[in-house]
Amino acid sequence: MFVTFEGIDGSGKSTQARRLAAALEARGQTVRLTREPGGSAGAEEIRRLLVEGDPGRWSAETEILLFTAARRDHVERLIHPALADGEIVVSDRFADSTRVYQGATRGDLRGIVDELHRLMIGLEPDLTFVIDMDPEVALARGLARRSGEDRFEDMGAGFQATLRDGFRALAHDLAERCVLIDGGRSEDAVAADVLAAYCARIGVRA
Amino acid sequence: MFVTFEGIDGSGKSTQARRLAAALEARGQTVRLTREPGGSAGAEEIRRLLVEGDPGRWSAETEILLFTAARRDHVERLIHPALADGEIVVSDRFADSTRVYQGATRGDLRGIVDELHRLMIGLEPDLTFVIDMDPEVALARGLARRSGEDRFEDMGAGFQATLRDGFRALAHDLAERCVLIDGGRSEDAVAADVLAAYCARIGVRA
Ligand SMILES: Nc1ncnc2c1ncn2[C@@H]1O[C@H](COP(=O)(O)OP(=O)(O)O)[C@@H](O)[C@H]1O
Ligand SMILES: Nc1ncnc2c1ncn2[C@@H]1O[C@H](COP(=O)(O)OP(=O)(O)O)[C@@H](O)[C@H]1O
Ligand SMILES: [Mg+2]
Ligand SMILES: [Mg+2]
Repeated sequence: MFVTFEGIDGSGKSTQARRLAAALEARGQTVRLTREPGGSAGAEEIRRLLVEGDPGRWSAETEILLFTAARRDHVERLIHPALADGEIVVSDRFADSTRVYQGATRGDLRGIVDELHRLMIGLEPDLTFVIDMDPEVALARGLARRSGEDRFEDMGAGFQATLRDGFRALAHDLAERCVLIDGGRSEDAVAADVLAAYCARIGVRA
Repeated sequence: MFVTFEGIDGSGKSTQARRLAAALEARGQTVRLTREPGGSAGAEEIRRLLVEGDPGRWSAETEILLFTAARRDHVERLIHPALADGEIVVSDRFADSTRVYQGATRGDLRGIVDELHRLMIGLEPDLTFVIDMDPEVALARGLARRSGEDRFEDMGAGFQATLRDGFRALAHDLAERCVLIDGGRSEDAVAADVLAAYCARIGVRA
């Protein structure tokens, strides 16, 4: 079972990925919690190239190639082996983030993003939680924990609103694996929804 | 005019690229001498990920993506602008090296290499010098200047012989832009051949 969390910055992906992993572990499952960009040693090195330095340092095309290289490493070194061992993999972001962010910044590259994914990655999640909420509220949360790695956050609430629309459209287009979650509530309320949707998906009681 | 030098390690690519650039400059041309992997600031950073560290650090697929990312940066930041300014670009290695090295190590990936090139690079040289010579002799030259960056050189003469065959096949398949040069002679003799072939190609007297 390969589960991903997607959504705008500050929507609670990292928090909810952690909570779902903890809830499943408490039920005796073996869970591998990971994140993108990064997630494996090589991918983390590529991530460093991506998140540090000047914003204009890489073109959109080069950036997509670097994200795909990092994802390929992450998939082959961590995700595939963990799935092969029967573990549940929970990833804080995956390929949908590339699709939505690139769609928002350079919509003309969406075809290239999809072709690269098909050619070099292939893997899709079994279940994706798209956490949806007001970007202004999410941004305010995010500002409380600025990390220095927030190139996209710096682009402001207007851009975050475009991303929100992108994530909502993606959840609609890929409804067979995506569950849209209202993230504008308490952590506990969101976590309960996520766990319930997970259990419904695999056909057990929450 | 975009000119590349290809061939096995130690065959004299860097030497001959430098000499052709100097000869053209002496004739009043503006020449941009460059190399791969690397060639632009971003590509050099990606090159560092590729040439340093453990040999098994990246899978063949991840490596191809990183080479393509570096090449994309090199093309868009250096090669295309220089060509647009009317300069002659001379590159010590380019996409043919990826084709031949990947063909020699993981022949099944040749289709992926070509698809990535088509999708993300597109550009092909106007003229490619494929320097051909006995790998044992080339390897002995190479050993005299070990750089610490010689992962492929470490694979020995048998592998270099496979590469030689790959470069010869490439020169044959892409004969409209490739010139096969006998590299097993003096630097001066090789340089004279290269310059003569260049002049013949652009239709002036050597
Ligand atoms: N439901 C919630 N209500 C209020 N604050 C939250 C909630 N979920 C997460 N937070 C806080 O908001 C910030 C962003 O959450 P995080 O999980 O890091 O989001 P993301 O990974 O999507 O950027 C963190 O400081 C986190 O503690
Ligand atoms: N024609 C030649 N004869 C003898 N030595 C050469 C010749 N061309 C180059 N060399 C030497 O051989 C070594 C490899 O040459 P180089 O141009 O760096 O090859 P490459 O770039 O193809 O690996 C260098 O030490 C160089 O000075
Ligand atoms: Mg996060
Ligand atoms: Mg060289």
